Amino acid sequence: MAKTRCEASFLVMIVSALTLAPAHAQNQQPSPAPALFAAPQTTQEQQQNFPPQLLKELAEIKTAALSDDYAYKQVEHLTENIGSRPSGSLQAQAAVDYVAGELRKLGLDVHLEGVKVPHWVRGTETAELAEFAGQPSGVTQRIVLTALGGSTATPTDGLTADIVVVSNFDELNALGRDKVAGKIILFNEIFDKQKAAAGMAFNAYGEAVRYRGAGPKAAADLGAVAALVRSVGSADFRLPHTGWSFPAGIPAGAVTAEDAELIAHLAAQGTVRMHLTLTPQKLPDATSYNVIADLKGSEHPEQIVVVSGHLDSWDLGTGAIDDAAGVAVAMEAAEIAQRLHLRPKRTLRVIAWMDEENGGAGSAAYTKDHSSEFLRHVAAIESDSGAAHPLGFDAKLTPHATEILRPALNVLQSIGANVLRESTYPPGADIAAMSDAGVPALGILQDGRTYFHYHHTAADTLDKIVPSELRENAAAMAVMGFALADMKDPLPR
Amino acid sequence: MAKTRCEASFLVMIVSALTLAPAHAQNQQPSPAPALFAAPQTTQEQQQNFPPQLLKELAEIKTAALSDDYAYKQVEHLTENIGSRPSGSLQAQAAVDYVAGELRKLGLDVHLEGVKVPHWVRGTETAELAEFAGQPSGVTQRIVLTALGGSTATPTDGLTADIVVVSNFDELNALGRDKVAGKIILFNEIFDKQKAAAGMAFNAYGEAVRYRGAGPKAAADLGAVAALVRSVGSADFRLPHTGWSFPAGIPAGAVTAEDAELIAHLAAQGTVRMHLTLTPQKLPDATSYNVIADLKGSEHPEQIVVVSGHLDSWDLGTGAIDDAAGVAVAMEAAEIAQRLHLRPKRTLRVIAWMDEENGGAGSAAYTKDHSSEFLRHVAAIESDSGAAHPLGFDAKLTPHATEILRPALNVLQSIGANVLRESTYPPGADIAAMSDAGVPALGILQDGRTYFHYHHTAADTLDKIVPSELRENAAAMAVMGFALADMKDPLPR
Repeated sequence: MAKTRCEASFLVMIVSALTLAPAHAQNQQPSPAPALFAAPQTTQEQQQNFPPQLLKELAEIKTAALSDDYAYKQVEHLTENIGSRPSGSLQAQAAVDYVAGELRKLGLDVHLEGVKVPHWVRGTETAELAEFAGQPSGVTQRIVLTALGGSTATPTDGLTADIVVVSNFDELNALGRDKVAGKIILFNEIFDKQKAAAGMAFNAYGEAVRYRGAGPKAAADLGAVAALVRSVGSADFRLPHTGWSFPAGIPAGAVTAEDAELIAHLAAQGTVRMHLTLTPQKLPDATSYNVIADLKGSEHPEQIVVVSGHLDSWDLGTGAIDDAAGVAVAMEAAEIAQRLHLRPKRTLRVIAWMDEENGGAGSAAYTKDHSSEFLRHVAAIESDSGAAHPLGFDAKLTPHATEILRPALNVLQSIGANVLRESTYPPGADIAAMSDAGVPALGILQDGRTYFHYHHTAADTLDKIVPSELRENAAAMAVMGFALADMKDPLPR
Repeated sequence: MAKTRCEASFLVMIVSALTLAPAHAQNQQPSPAPALFAAPQTTQEQQQNFPPQLLKELAEIKTAALSDDYAYKQVEHLTENIGSRPSGSLQAQAAVDYVAGELRKLGLDVHLEGVKVPHWVRGTETAELAEFAGQPSGVTQRIVLTALGGSTATPTDGLTADIVVVSNFDELNALGRDKVAGKIILFNEIFDKQKAAAGMAFNAYGEAVRYRGAGPKAAADLGAVAALVRSVGSADFRLPHTGWSFPAGIPAGAVTAEDAELIAHLAAQGTVRMHLTLTPQKLPDATSYNVIADLKGSEHPEQIVVVSGHLDSWDLGTGAIDDAAGVAVAMEAAEIAQRLHLRPKRTLRVIAWMDEENGGAGSAAYTKDHSSEFLRHVAAIESDSGAAHPLGFDAKLTPHATEILRPALNVLQSIGANVLRESTYPPGADIAAMSDAGVPALGILQDGRTYFHYHHTAADTLDKIVPSELRENAAAMAVMGFALADMKDPLPR
């Protein structure tokens, strides 16, 4: 189990306490330093895999990443000159062309791998409370919401139905078809802000997102005419958060946390009736692409280390933290190697994945086309948790592999990005299939405390990225990517 | 000059330093305590005005306010059962009826004073960038914005024009008519978040809001076809902030801070062309009301102390912090007096002002109808800066009046609401005319650090109010209102 920063602080406290020990204690014969404080021994295997030349190069890569804005300029272009990049959109295609062009400029071996992606487009989305407790005559109340990805449409002029509020699936099922049929179901699962603020944002997300994922289908199965979820997010700025939902065949949306509270309060007082209009359209599947760019390995070009992020985004914001940043730092991993004229032994493969958000078609296509080569995929990294300060990596590795990697993490210690946290789930949606097939997999572990403030909202925009933090992410991706591609032996699996 | 909390912290530091003085200093003959640390002497005038019975009653009022949720329940009803309350709306009328009814329930002498108010209603509001640097073929970019109050409409299908970005009026004027005519002007004045975070939010607001107020007219005078301002607010959640703007005769809107950044970045790269659709309507002026409720004074019923907030709100949110909270704590000032069977010497007048937001018609009408009685208006308080923890009061008083009031402030010291900060401007828009006429005027001074996160946005909703903090505001309003109404002499002016 990797050390956490809190454990590090705790150690500092212990050391301070020892230093301030009373004089008589200081006069005693010094005991041998406890094992806890002994300098870790470098194993022979670590030394073999990370010879001095490689460690020097990794340090140079880190320095290069921390001193330029290549990744930031990529994010700028993707978010401001192209904009939001939902699967199947013109913007997604523009992003494919742009990233492929930039990677070609770097002298990489670039190709596009075609993939059919869903093409769902947002329409009108409005809702008003048509009836509620204490309602003044002639007054409705506006509800702020957005359609979930893949939602079907209401009639053009909307539908009107009573709302039934439930906190969880048990409550829904206890109601049964009699009380659900014909209703709009609101899943009012509250995102745990304390968990998020305490550094466990993805745990909070995991708990709440079940309702976005499976709620509409569960409601539809009991005859609901529409389903709403409380937005899965940690801020309080009346922002709806969209996202993928299991196809339910009924209109499905996310109301803001504020609107969920309002509806729940009013429902406790009496009937709440909503007029709901969502007119998204599912267009025919479109052809799109994963962008794949290889910096060929000097000794084992057939062995591949993937560095990646996903190029598509949701449509509300411009997808800066989710996930132009991930693509950009993956691009920079290759850019730095080229800039510093460093050629790794193995092939460093940059992948800008398509359709992570709306079904994962890009990842599925890659798996279909390349699974026979997964034994030659030495490792895969994805950055898809934002662009805040990196603490290190979430990783699905063997303990042996984790131990061997320590010298690479040590290079990142000076920027605080040296944690390696064992992950019980694949650390990155697009590399999950590889991970499941045994490919050592790593995800950059960013400080996630504010990630779900912005995730899948209109506010995921360029300004949310702190340039110095993006440089740290570029350093983490470039150092780890190059280490995996150039260490003596492939990482054990 | 009243002491600030920072000064208080500074004093603690000094005291600590003295306590830790070296031993030889401690052996010296003690000097008399410096005047700075002497217990303040209560003046004879203070003692006469605040006899023990009144001080006891003020303490009881404070305790009552801190232990019930009367004000919160009022805010709940106004925001959730009624909703947004723009001038001229059905909701504003419902709020008038509701508040008058509640005040009658308290046994007050309630009447409505009619006032003609503007009736402006929001329509469609959309914008897209139709041309910009690096634009992929066929792609536009969505811009998030809202119309400013009183904005005129574009044609129903919108207008299209190039955007010119300016940082201030000087830049606009330097461009001149040649470069402004036919264009959409964007005023990109940046709200100073550091000032706001450091407790000077209203200074930051004052600097930025000039462009919302006067920008559209200045642009129109040079022939612009529309004007946009960067939203005046301190958060970064892509929320547009509406607000009043001097009538300009052209469509006027506020883009979010994020969209202002985007446009400014793209404008630095080349032409930025926008398609803008704003279809608000100015309907005929409507009849509305100030709600006025008197708790008649026992000795000098003709002398009046006003406790107030404003009942109207902008239309995007539900006007919880701006300003259902102010109305609610003013109501509670009277409610507590009735609950505790305390009848002040002077009349305590609760006013729920109409149309503070869209021109101030309610305040103007009151001034017109009552200015001849302003000599009998002993003091006026308004709460219109939110519902966060109160630090005390902003006040436009004579130094003599400030001194006399100290015992009332001392009652509020236990909740940290005892600052009295001299104000160079009237502390409350609705009491400004009274203040200008010499009526001692006070505004509750809330912790304003997050106020402009939500002010005039869709996110001004009930959840932004912390019940315990609202109770503190009720205590501040009730204690100060009752003190002013029951102290021996009218506050000097």
